[in-house]
Amino acid sequence: MIKRLCIIGTGLIGGSLALALKKNNYCQHIIGSGRDESRLKKALQLGVIDSYEIDYSKAVVDADIVVVAVPLGAMHEVFEKIKSHITGDTLITDVGSAKSGVINTARAVFDRVDKFIPGHPIAGIEQSGVEAAFDSLYLDRRVILTPVKENSKKDIETIQSMWEAAGSVVDLMDADHHDLILAGTSHLPHVLAYALVDCLNNVDDVDEIFRFAAGGFRDFTRIASSDPVMWRDICLQNGDAILSMMDKYEYEISILKQAIKSKDSGSLLEIFSRAKTARDKFSM
Amino acid sequence: MIKRLCIIGTGLIGGSLALALKKNNYCQHIIGSGRDESRLKKALQLGVIDSYEIDYSKAVVDADIVVVAVPLGAMHEVFEKIKSHITGDTLITDVGSAKSGVINTARAVFDRVDKFIPGHPIAGIEQSGVEAAFDSLYLDRRVILTPVKENSKKDIETIQSMWEAAGSVVDLMDADHHDLILAGTSHLPHVLAYALVDCLNNVDDVDEIFRFAAGGFRDFTRIASSDPVMWRDICLQNGDAILSMMDKYEYEISILKQAIKSKDSGSLLEIFSRAKTARDKFSM
Repeated sequence: MIKRLCIIGTGLIGGSLALALKKNNYCQHIIGSGRDESRLKKALQLGVIDSYEIDYSKAVVDADIVVVAVPLGAMHEVFEKIKSHITGDTLITDVGSAKSGVINTARAVFDRVDKFIPGHPIAGIEQSGVEAAFDSLYLDRRVILTPVKENSKKDIETIQSMWEAAGSVVDLMDADHHDLILAGTSHLPHVLAYALVDCLNNVDDVDEIFRFAAGGFRDFTRIASSDPVMWRDICLQNGDAILSMMDKYEYEISILKQAIKSKDSGSLLEIFSRAKTARDKFSM
Repeated sequence: MIKRLCIIGTGLIGGSLALALKKNNYCQHIIGSGRDESRLKKALQLGVIDSYEIDYSKAVVDADIVVVAVPLGAMHEVFEKIKSHITGDTLITDVGSAKSGVINTARAVFDRVDKFIPGHPIAGIEQSGVEAAFDSLYLDRRVILTPVKENSKKDIETIQSMWEAAGSVVDLMDADHHDLILAGTSHLPHVLAYALVDCLNNVDDVDEIFRFAAGGFRDFTRIASSDPVMWRDICLQNGDAILSMMDKYEYEISILKQAIKSKDSGSLLEIFSRAKTARDKFSM
């Protein structure tokens, strides 16, 4: 059993991890840290953490594992603040949705990265904050670890065990590969959904458009309710992979436009049928 | 109380209307018609209709209202087959998702269109067929009627009452306006979702992409499981409005690409925040 776990950032992601680990008796003590004391108090009240410490550099002392669950854009500052206070055996991991950028940040800040094991839980809901946290957020969800070459097998396994204790299925892959896969399944859809809502919002009949929107629209645009800061950071940190996916998408759109323009019944049916078959195979 | 209602096409849309109207004692007898006798038998077994008649021209005789609930691409054929068998007072309505095309078809086929009141229930799920029909599909859903100038107020009100009996809220608007609104809220999102799934399906790592897809992707692409034939027909019949919305969307995408390319943090946050605000206002 792990003695002391420190979670920096006790929002939905960090808070749900804490709840899952407490439920499964993974560690003796979870200390929370973050820049907003009122949120830490709330997390303590809700029983998400056992104690809190507003000063990151104090919070990490003697921790077996430090989980940095802050937005991508805040990683650099957190790493800077904790780097001189991490003891030799403490493992650090993160939950960032784009891995290459976090790894570059870690390499730039830390003297050595052998104890930093980058991670990304593929889970989340549109809501945020510790009030939205729940202990089954990671149950049967995938977590991708993207180890750096300096990581030891044993340390990777420790972080893997933590996520497994939270109910997740853990995969290991290269950070660049992770970033490309996620650009397709997650980053691109979010950008496309934000784009659709903003595009319709600029149309004259916007009120009517939203009034007559039905279930399909609601589902399609749900992810446009996600945290704009988080998604700005992801676009900044995984821009190349996202742009590459956007190019492919624009090409697909150009083919569809041509088919609609020329009333090419056969091509339209072929594309829609192929997409339906692919989507129907993907049941979850 | 209406005596005799004829529904041509007893799938999800027509079948659910029949169930809702039966539940609310709107009519004495519902006769179903369609080109597939086994489906009509199924509808009869399930209690969706009271009788069936495979021959459209016989099914419509003595009906107070004929609801043509077939795909857009089949409207022409159905109109041709029933036109000589409709008695003077019988009202005809339809459920097509693009109205101008259906109206043009009706004008081309029928000698007079005063008894044809075009309609579109904004409701549906990805499943289709009479087995998926349920009596609350239209409850609190909007139905848009797009009357032609020849329609009388009384006849429009009769069709409006029918949809209200099924639990719907009915709006009246011009067919072109309907087609533009629906292009934005429904047709464009469907095209975009089909495009995303087909685009990812063409990527080398397609299996991994789908394996690591999470809830956001599932919601975003749910509508790509919709009936390809129906959406082909909609693209063929409402192509101009859809293309116009696609142009606006491509422009929005080009702005986002530029912002990602130039790491324009401010623009990204502004667009995502504006979209989130618009989407959050739209609760349903």
